[in-house]
Parts: sequence; structure tokens; C-alpha cells
Amino acid sequence: MSTSNPFDPANFTRRIPEGDDRERLVCDDCGFIQYENPKIVVGSVAYWGDRILLCRRAIEPRIGYWTLPAGYLELGEDVQVGARREAWEEARAQMEIEQLLAVYTIQRISQVQLIYRARLTSPEVSAGPESREVALFHPDEIPRDEIAFPTVHWALAHFQETRDHTAFAPRQNPEGGTGNLTGGL
Amino acid sequence: MSTSNPFDPANFTRRIPEGDDRERLVCDDCGFIQYENPKIVVGSVAYWGDRILLCRRAIEPRIGYWTLPAGYLELGEDVQVGARREAWEEARAQMEIEQLLAVYTIQRISQVQLIYRARLTSPEVSAGPESREVALFHPDEIPRDEIAFPTVHWALAHFQETRDHTAFAPRQNPEGGTGNLTGGL
Repeated sequence: MSTSNPFDPANFTRRIPEGDDRERLVCDDCGFIQYENPKIVVGSVAYWGDRILLCRRAIEPRIGYWTLPAGYLELGEDVQVGARREAWEEARAQMEIEQLLAVYTIQRISQVQLIYRARLTSPEVSAGPESREVALFHPDEIPRDEIAFPTVHWALAHFQETRDHTAFAPRQNPEGGTGNLTGGL
Repeated sequence: MSTSNPFDPANFTRRIPEGDDRERLVCDDCGFIQYENPKIVVGSVAYWGDRILLCRRAIEPRIGYWTLPAGYLELGEDVQVGARREAWEEARAQMEIEQLLAVYTIQRISQVQLIYRARLTSPEVSAGPESREVALFHPDEIPRDEIAFPTVHWALAHFQETRDHTAFAPRQNPEGGTGNLTGGL
């Protein structure tokens, strides 16, 4: 998905529109209010036996690092359908979703991640256009020094912690965990 | 919160921008791409003993009908903080969140609702500006014919179903449940 935006927000200023109680990005020319909302990421820890699916990123940010299949929920899309779509797009993986594993909030970038635990229905996976390679790792073979994002570390730990449970409370950010690449967990 | 937007999208058409794979709202004048994303609603089924907090809406849509304290997650806001903020804004309620009760998707309006089970820390509640009145209802006193939205019915049922559980898998849309006011459950 392209994220380039040719729009130049040069005439936008942050101020509180009349009748509102928070700063918004307002165009000084036409009065357009650019409401910004948190974005939803849907993804999965997908397993086959005792191995876990990871994807090596072919795109920025964190190109070359390993991540879970995950991405932005599309408009009008069910959350579980979105998680399955991302697994297909990034790893040509097919799976059955078992349970919501975790809800992580990355406040700095206003992102809410819904990460599911999912069972692959086949071990046949292959890199989609956004992945350099994909692989199924035993837990002790996971390239922990080459993980793309803190939330991937969290989700892998929460997966291990709950893998023998059939029903459990979804996990959230660990204490003090911001999800930022620097300055946090 | 005001949701009026003086911007007139008269010159916007839906088309697939170069490098993208989905239709977006694109301005034919300046090329601005209005990315639309699903919105996150955070809310709670908050209880005091065996009574449940409901708010009678003072605003459209569904003015005069009863709902759970819930609203849009703000930019940069943690999901649980958002759920507590909404309970305060709409019902002057203070509470401790126990667990994620449900994740509902309303595809027609691209809304993902995260509804928490929460324990009120005091039975003293009062109407905030968006509520006509607020009340704590015994389950058999809930005004079921005057409920604002299908998801409120779902959440009340899922609350009863899980209330003796300390850890459980969050619920989702019931089979066939669209969340639409008409034509669905």
C-alpha cells in the first residue's frame, strides 16, 4: 500500500475548533478540519505445531528485520478477516484464528494493535510482496536480535505464556512498555 | 465533541491512487488523498454489585435511548484510559477495568468497539453533558426496549455470560450480527 500523500498541509495549524475541546489540524484557508484518529493494526502469532510464523520485512520501516504478519485494518473490514488478509498478503499463510492474544497501544503514533493467536492450516508459506522471506521458527531459534518492533517481542512472550490456555484474558503493554523503538521496552 | 465539518468534498471522487490497490477519496483539484480508516470506540459494562451502569443519550443518534458509556478513542490515548475517560465524561463514573469483554466490528460504518468489563469504585454517578440521565440497573430492570444500539444488547448478554469468569476469551459479534440498527440483529 502506498502511503505517499501529495497534499501539502502548509496552511494547516493546530487549534481547537469552535465547539470542540481538543486541538485539531485546521486549514486556515478553507476551514477544513482534518480529524485524526488512532489507527488499528490487526495481526497474528500464527503457529504450526511448535513453530511460529515470522516475516522478514522487505519494506521500511525496519527493512530486513523480522515481524509478525500484521497491518492496517481496511475500511469496512472485520478485524479477524483483516488479520487473515495480512497473513495471506505477507506470508501466503492460511490460518484459523483461535483467540485475541493481546491489545497493545502505541500512544506516540496513535496505534492500537489487535494481535490474534492463530493456527496455521498448512505449513506452506511463502513471501508476499512486502516480505523478503518468511519462516516457521522453533521458539529457541527465533532471531531475537533481529526483531522489527517491541510489540513483536511482547506478542511472542504473551504467546508462550498463554499457549496452553484455551481461554484467557488478552494481554496488554507490559508495565512501562511504550512500543517505541527507542527509549522504551 | 463537534463533528461538523465545513469542508465541502464536492471535488472528491473515489478512485485508486497510483501505487495503491483500493479506492480512496481523492481531490480532483489538488490530488489530496483522504485516507479513511476504521474508527475505534472504547467503552465499558461497568457494574456495582449486581447493577449495571447505563446512560440515557442526550445527543443524536438515538437520543433518549439507553447506552453504555463509550465513545471514540482520542489520538495518542491508551485504550483503557479512553474507556475510563468516556465513563467519566458521560456518567461521572469512576471504575477499575477488569478485562476486555468484547471486540465488535460494525462493518457498515467501519467501527471497531473495544468493550471492557469494569468495576465501579463508587455507586455515585451523574449525567455528564452527553447524557440525559444515568442509572444503575438490576439485570431484570434494564429497559430492553429502549436500548440505543445492537452492540449494547450484545455487551449486556456477554457480560452476564462471563460475569463469574475471572479470565475468558473476549466475545465478538454474534453469528450474523452486523451491528446495524436495521436489517440485522
